[in-house]
Amino acid sequence: MRFARVATPEGLTFATVDGSVGQEVIRVIDGHPFEEPKYTGKQWPIAEVRLLSPVLPSKIVAIGRNYADHVAEVFKQSAETLPPTLFIKPPTAVIGPEAAIKIPEFAHDVEFEGELAMIVGKPCKNVNREDWKTVIRGFTIVNDVSSRALQFADGQWARAKGIDTFCPLGPWMETDIDAFDFSDLPIKAHLTRDGETETKQDSNSNQMIMSPGEIVEFITASMTLLPGDVICTGSPAGTAPMFPGDTIEIEVQGIGRLRNPVERA
Amino acid sequence: MRFARVATPEGLTFATVDGSVGQEVIRVIDGHPFEEPKYTGKQWPIAEVRLLSPVLPSKIVAIGRNYADHVAEVFKQSAETLPPTLFIKPPTAVIGPEAAIKIPEFAHDVEFEGELAMIVGKPCKNVNREDWKTVIRGFTIVNDVSSRALQFADGQWARAKGIDTFCPLGPWMETDIDAFDFSDLPIKAHLTRDGETETKQDSNSNQMIMSPGEIVEFITASMTLLPGDVICTGSPAGTAPMFPGDTIEIEVQGIGRLRNPVERA
Repeated sequence: MRFARVATPEGLTFATVDGSVGQEVIRVIDGHPFEEPKYTGKQWPIAEVRLLSPVLPSKIVAIGRNYADHVAEVFKQSAETLPPTLFIKPPTAVIGPEAAIKIPEFAHDVEFEGELAMIVGKPCKNVNREDWKTVIRGFTIVNDVSSRALQFADGQWARAKGIDTFCPLGPWMETDIDAFDFSDLPIKAHLTRDGETETKQDSNSNQMIMSPGEIVEFITASMTLLPGDVICTGSPAGTAPMFPGDTIEIEVQGIGRLRNPVERA
Repeated sequence: MRFARVATPEGLTFATVDGSVGQEVIRVIDGHPFEEPKYTGKQWPIAEVRLLSPVLPSKIVAIGRNYADHVAEVFKQSAETLPPTLFIKPPTAVIGPEAAIKIPEFAHDVEFEGELAMIVGKPCKNVNREDWKTVIRGFTIVNDVSSRALQFADGQWARAKGIDTFCPLGPWMETDIDAFDFSDLPIKAHLTRDGETETKQDSNSNQMIMSPGEIVEFITASMTLLPGDVICTGSPAGTAPMFPGDTIEIEVQGIGRLRNPVERA
């Protein structure tokens, strides 16, 4: 099932999303997406609503260096000498689909990073890897926008990856976790510039170093996760610079596409 | 004026704190500490309430390497080669005064870091350094608990400093900002072990590299700050290992003391 947060002509609400691409129907629910939906009976064609980020996370915990091919391209090292690490993006960086990524003057070498994101469904701590599906409510797509210049200048990544608008999230949450096969889940990023679209990231979750279960175990050994918290599972290779005027579309099979234009802040 | 968040026999509430050390009176307010207090008429002696963290931040943004003496002791470099940086602690790390810092087995070389913290009073972005007092509601004390082993192993500091209970905050927020003289504000940390108390940090805000105004300008160039968000201004020298059984008391002149026992998680 797909859950979205939407702005309708009658206000903000959670909803489910049914139907095929471009013809989706938004069915308003009473309550939140962490329980079985209770429908109000209201519904809208997708063209008449605006999709927002599917959740408002209290924290966004991200795994860095979780794809061997991306470690090689950005850090010029192997994943053996530079293992996965953990960083945090602030909630104020979150935007929804179609909202603009706004690059400030001082942030140079800004790149997109298309990733699968997990959305936490219940408060949890010390989760064993094999139990990860009991605490994850669903998946969405994240673009972990990063200024490479600030990332390397600061050493810490919080600023490079934490600038307002640097965490596009959406277009919705897919709760059918069992339908995802991590041995073969395509993850892509398409860059549109001057009317031409090029696929820059074209990788697969089979390149992941830490699996979803290992990530949940790793994070919850340290931190309590809360419903709506977001876990970014890491970017595969193919990240590339983007500039005002570009549009970035991240595609994860089984979820859909997260599209955001790029502007100067 | 001092604002606290307290658990009273009648429930959780915000309150003001009046009176001298040990004899404080907690006066319950109707509303929140970001406006002039409206008193309900209820009051309690401090001994009959439990102080909680003074705010529940949506994010905790911290400046690392902001004291030259601490840069030298931890990183073995000068502040010129290793300038201040920015990192984020998650809200789930926050505890209040007297709550236990709980060290998990895998977190080695855990040290206290006594710091002055600013509490944001209004939503703000792109604040000029000279206007910082218009967006900061008050000051409190933070203990930026850090596992040095995880900090250096991970490279990123989010896990080392983001473990549950690793952000003691309090005991209250002091809003009389103008009473603080940053050219001479003593900051201390006292460690009690086996009944003996030793002052381990004994420094002064005159060692700060970035001033409060520069910090607010630096952060808000990237991130929107929201009411209740916390800015940790950096730790001076003297941080030291702590172990289960210890008690750590951070002291900032003009605010008071933040005391937390240390336990094994």
